[in-house]
Formats: sequence, C-alpha cells, structure tokens
Amino acid sequence: MAVTLSATLAANEDIERRRRAGERVLHLAFGEAGLPVHPALRDRLAAASERNGYGPVAGTPGLRAAAAGYWTRRGLATDPDLVVSGPGSKPLLYGLLLAIGGDIVLPMPSWVSYAAQADLVGSRPIMVPPPRGEGGVPDPDLVTAAVTRARAAGRTVSSLLVTLPDNPTGRLATPETVGRLAQVARDLDLVIISDEIYRDLVHDPAAPYVSPADLAPERTIITTGLSKSLALGGWRIGVARLPSGRHDLRARLLAVASEIWSAPAAPVQEAAAYAFGEPPELTERIARSRRLHGLVARAVHERFVAIGARVDAPQGGFYLYPDLSHLGLGGSTELTKVLLEEHGIGVLPGHAFGDDPAAARVRVAVSLLHGDTTEQRMTALGSDDPLRLPWIAANLDFLATGLAHLSPPRRGTVRAHRQGLAPAPCHG
Amino acid sequence: MAVTLSATLAANEDIERRRRAGERVLHLAFGEAGLPVHPALRDRLAAASERNGYGPVAGTPGLRAAAAGYWTRRGLATDPDLVVSGPGSKPLLYGLLLAIGGDIVLPMPSWVSYAAQADLVGSRPIMVPPPRGEGGVPDPDLVTAAVTRARAAGRTVSSLLVTLPDNPTGRLATPETVGRLAQVARDLDLVIISDEIYRDLVHDPAAPYVSPADLAPERTIITTGLSKSLALGGWRIGVARLPSGRHDLRARLLAVASEIWSAPAAPVQEAAAYAFGEPPELTERIARSRRLHGLVARAVHERFVAIGARVDAPQGGFYLYPDLSHLGLGGSTELTKVLLEEHGIGVLPGHAFGDDPAAARVRVAVSLLHGDTTEQRMTALGSDDPLRLPWIAANLDFLATGLAHLSPPRRGTVRAHRQGLAPAPCHG
Repeated sequence: MAVTLSATLAANEDIERRRRAGERVLHLAFGEAGLPVHPALRDRLAAASERNGYGPVAGTPGLRAAAAGYWTRRGLATDPDLVVSGPGSKPLLYGLLLAIGGDIVLPMPSWVSYAAQADLVGSRPIMVPPPRGEGGVPDPDLVTAAVTRARAAGRTVSSLLVTLPDNPTGRLATPETVGRLAQVARDLDLVIISDEIYRDLVHDPAAPYVSPADLAPERTIITTGLSKSLALGGWRIGVARLPSGRHDLRARLLAVASEIWSAPAAPVQEAAAYAFGEPPELTERIARSRRLHGLVARAVHERFVAIGARVDAPQGGFYLYPDLSHLGLGGSTELTKVLLEEHGIGVLPGHAFGDDPAAARVRVAVSLLHGDTTEQRMTALGSDDPLRLPWIAANLDFLATGLAHLSPPRRGTVRAHRQGLAPAPCHG
Repeated sequence: MAVTLSATLAANEDIERRRRAGERVLHLAFGEAGLPVHPALRDRLAAASERNGYGPVAGTPGLRAAAAGYWTRRGLATDPDLVVSGPGSKPLLYGLLLAIGGDIVLPMPSWVSYAAQADLVGSRPIMVPPPRGEGGVPDPDLVTAAVTRARAAGRTVSSLLVTLPDNPTGRLATPETVGRLAQVARDLDLVIISDEIYRDLVHDPAAPYVSPADLAPERTIITTGLSKSLALGGWRIGVARLPSGRHDLRARLLAVASEIWSAPAAPVQEAAAYAFGEPPELTERIARSRRLHGLVARAVHERFVAIGARVDAPQGGFYLYPDLSHLGLGGSTELTKVLLEEHGIGVLPGHAFGDDPAAARVRVAVSLLHGDTTEQRMTALGSDDPLRLPWIAANLDFLATGLAHLSPPRRGTVRAHRQGLAPAPCHG
C-alpha cells in the first residue's frame, strides 16, 4: 500500500501558491461545482442545528427514505433499508471497496480517487479504456479479456466501476454500451459500482439515461451525492443504493462505516433529506446549474476545437478532456506544465486519471469560470446568456488567447501574454 | 482483513429493538455525551451555512489556528500547520494507522474501534494490560517485553496508543506511568498516539494531567474532538496535533484523508473553530458537563460497590468498568445478557474492548441517565444536586434494584422486578 499525495492535490496546491504570489491563473483544475448553496438548504441546516446525537450509521430514516424516493422517481424502486449514507460519496466508495474486497476494473481514464482508494485497501485496479468516443465505462469486450486474463493469473476480480456521466471526459456512456457491460458483469459475476454523482447534470435532460441498475439490478450499487448538482461539496453528504437482497453487503459496509466515519454530520443529513425530496425550488436550481455548466462547457469545447484539439463534446457535468498531441509539446505532464507556467491555465494531466503519460491529454474543469463571488455566480445562474457576462467572457478570452499561443511554444512571447492580460482576479 | 459488525453496534441495536418492543431498558451501553448542543454553537453553524466549498483537506486556517491555541493554553505550543482536522477523531485515528503502518500496541481493555480499525488496515494489535488500578495505558514494562518479542518474531511494531482519561475504565493514567511509557516509546522508537478526547472531562479539574506530548513531543500525536466535552458527536469533528517536524507524517495523513473523507463539513468547521477558542460560555458549559458526568458516574459507582463489585472510581469522562466475577454468572457475554434480559440494564461486555471473555467485566456508560429530553438534560446541567432530580433518581433506583437482584440469579423474581418498576421511559 502506497500513501502519496494525490496529483490533484499537488496540482491544486501549485495553482494556489501561484495565485497567492500574485500570478493570474485560470483555475480549470478543480472539480468543485463553483455555485452558491440554495437558501432553502441553508434554512434547513440552521433548523437542524440542535441535532447533535450520533444517530444510525446508515443515516437517519428520513434521509434514507428521501434518497429511496429520489431513485424510485427515476424508475428504480428502492428500499430505504438498502440506502446507506456517508460524509460524501467518496467515503462510501472507499467503504464499498473494503466491503467487497478483491480487484476492481476501472475505466481508463477515470476519477483520480478510484485507483488511489483501491491502492489504499490493497486492491489492484485493472484499467480498461472505454469504447471510442465514450467515457466513464470500460469497453465491455476488453473487460472480458482483461478479467479472464487476471483470473487465469490467480487474481480475484470482484467488481467493475462506471461513472455516468463521466469525470474526466464529460461523456455519457450509451445505453447500448451500458447494456453490454451489464451482460459482461453478469457473465463474469462482477459487482457493478455505478458512480452517478453527475446524473442530474446531464446537459440535455431529454438524453436517454440508462443505469446498470436498470439492467442488472441484482449486482449494481449506485452512489451519488449533492456535491455536484447542488454544489454542496463542502457539506460532505453522499448516499449509496445497494442491490435488492444484499443485506450481507449492507452489514459489511455498515461495519466499515462505523469504524471509520460513523455517519454524516446530523444537521447536514436533515438538509440532504430535504434535497433528495426534490422540492420545486431545488429542481429549478439544478436545472439552472445544468444549463450554465453545459453552456460554459460547450464554449470551452469550442475554444479547444479552434486550435485543432481532438476533444469530444461534453455531455454532462463540467469537464472536458482534450487531446493536444498535435502540438508536439510532450506528454500530459509537460503539457500541463506549459499551460500553467506559460499561459496561466491550470488543468490536470491525464496521467493523474490513469491515462497514458505520453498522451497530451488534460482534464479541464469549467465550473470555476462562472464567477469569483457569490453575486457573480448568482448572476450567472440567472442569466439567459451567461457567456456574455463580462467575467465569463473575459475568462473565455483569456483561455482562447492562451491556447492560441500554445503553438509554436515561444516562451518569451507567451509570458508577456499572460502578464499583460485582463487584470481581474480569477476565482481564489 | 475481517469485516464484521462491531459488538457495540450489535449491542446497541439489540437495546433499541427491545425498546421499540416496549421493554424498559436502561441504556448504559452507548458512549454519547447525552447533553444538548450549546446555542452559541448552533448560531455559528447557522451563520456558516453559506460555506459549501471543499476547502483544504487539513481544515480551514481558522480551525487549525483555534485548535493550536487550545493546545498552547495547555502548555503545548502548537504550530497550526501541524494540526489536521477530520470528521471526528475516529477517521483521524484510522488515517493515522494507515499513514504510520505496522503493528500497534493497545491497552487491554481499550475502546472497541482501535482494534477494529487496526484490523481493517491489516495491522495486528498487541494488547497489553495497564498497571493495576490504572486504565488507558499499557503497562510500560510489559510493553517492552511484548514489543521485543513481536520484533524477534519478525513483526514491525510502529506505535502505541493511550487514552487519557480512558474509555472504558474511566481512569486517568498517573503522570509517573505516562513518564515511564514515554521513555519506553523512545527506547523502542515507537510513535505514541494519545487519544485525549475526554481530557476536558477529567472530573477533578485540579488533578495533574500529563500528556505524552509533554514528555516525548518528538513522537507524540494527540487526537481530540468535540463529541464528548461539547456533546457534538453527531456533528463529526475532530483534530490531530502532529509532532514538530513531522511534515512527512502530515503529508501522508493528508494523502489518506483526501482519498477517504476530504474534510469535515465546512459549516461544522466554523463552529468548531469558535469552540476551540474556548469562549467563556462554552468553558462554563464544559465545566457544568464535567460536574454532571462526575456526579452521576460516582453515584453509579456506589451502586456497583454496594453489591460487592470490584470497580475503580471513575476519574474522567462518563464510564466505569466494574468486575462482577464474584457473582459467578459467567463471563462478560453471559453477564451482559443477564443484565439486559433479566434486569433491563444495557451495558457492553468487556470482551468487546479486547478484555478476557471469561472475566465478568462490563463497560457502563452513565451519560444517558441525565434525561430523556432536552429540557431534562438542561435542568440536569443547571442543577446543584442533579442526583435528586426525579428522573435521575429513578434511573439510579432502577439500576440499584436490578443489581441487587443479580445474586442469586432467580429468573422469575427478576423479570417480575423489571416489569413492575418505574414506568417512566428511559432515553430513546
């Protein structure tokens, strides 16, 4: 088991250090929703501030019932007894890895913490790329081959993970791929962990969404949370939906949870129960957030396309994953370094997500472009045309100019560009 | 690595099931402070409800500075950079086990989660009893022998843990023992983890308190939290103080934290920063809590002494650890079962704390005797003579009567006793 500082943490610390030193840096490296908390949730938190008891490890009955309702409204009838909450979906994912045991198949690339968590629990991830043009799902045919090979070598492979829609690619797997993957999981007897924390941020609400839980309910665990759709990352709340009949898995997850984190903060559970009930003002807030993230993500996508990057259009969440190999600037680490040091554009290297370090792919998070203050962010949420708001337009211009100067890489010119441009500070 | 439901969880579920079925059960099995949250903390939480960003993994600068001040006022000058917060001291302890690695020496008995956490991370605990009449510290001479033996057998032993004052025994190690242990840790090159979550609840504020960090600052980590002194268990907040110069350990702990829990809930961090500043109204609240826990713990102690139990007087927190072997009722599991099923007294068996299952020792938590409602608990906190409040007096009588009927164990008589007594419901 290795314990090392994550690439994300290191990159974000580097960006913050530069900002403190007065450099202008466009922060596209952090997966935070970058929007204010809705007042209705603040009210609920305040009203629940007398809740100071430990409470049940799985979460309060009210929270579990609300989360069950959330899934039931999405066509997945859910028993509240099979809902387990945690202080974020991240600890739940960690607890599930411990409770399930064995090695896990991950998409390559995939969110940095999956592989890091597997490493912490002594599980060896098997990284499998997605079908061309997709993201967040390992290619079903390659999964069969990889698992068969690993098992032939004596390894125990117990689970596979999908992210729908995906971080880092911003893509949503097709129903056809999800269907093939569900069948492969059944054939290989694998548990499916479906991280659906960005589900409510699929940009096109009419797009078909199929969860593996729709197709392989007996073996699919869904995790989600309120960090992305309602921007409650700092409140630390997530929920997991376990497969019917898997009370054994529930008992193991609760045993882990009770020894590591106990339960989410009790007042936060109360607010989360309200949120999972999906009252109109929060549904409206999520719709506006979805629209804003989508507009800004597509605008950023255009800027990368304009310089010839290979990049699939984002379909959900607030990420995209351009490939700038055509510029000949080196692998993902070199590209990330040039973008930050020469152009003030902070992104994460693809290799942090398990991708090939030689590929010049980076993850771009657009959600910190919406504004630096609560007022700017609220204005962006309410705007019919947020791309014309001065601060968002300036951020997009700064990005476009930096990207335009990327090739050929003339350091002197480029540095002059970064230092001369728009004096407005970015999100700090 | 075994993953099983903890004995605590199982025992508490059993007690709750009986209560739901209408049985009267005196709940002495749960380590919750059982007191209301102070209004000043509720106000701070509500005021901080706009904090929804992820924030630093180590905790906000304000929280870390406040915690550093808390320790500095206790004679331990503390660098805020070496303070790391977490959602409870429990996850911090888990993260420390992962970050430190190797096997750990634990007192026998000790809090259930230490050994359970060690098991989860693949560490093998070495259980060492305390010096006679003490608790929460492994006997220094026995530590030397045990570690030497384990190392000779090829094991890596990296740390030892102390609880000052202790759960389950309610005892505070003497300065002399802490001194000898610090020397042993130095001789054996062991990190000391000092769980001081009950420190502010030492019943006699004039009692000498020596932390290993006073004597072996280069190798002692202190963990604490607000779950006990300010009854904020359900808010999930803890802090760790790392030894000077151990930035390597900090980096490893943060790496673990960032992959498992990220940070405590941001609004809770704000309230905790206020609390660690020790404003007068909270110092007063802690003083009243300390007095109440001490009075009730001593009253419960008297009840056990009255039936001939061997039990050291409690010195801190809200626990005591009687030995009822003289009754000949079997080991700790059998005794726990008789107490619950025949007398409606819910406690935890000593073997859950790593003690010899054949010894008839149980852990008794007194904090749920203070009242069933916020009003009763506030009255108890404010009372000059809480033992005379009707609900506390009734609880103590119920306990005394149950204990008096313990020997000889005549089931018919005893059951009639439990069903006939005081109709007032206990804490639910």
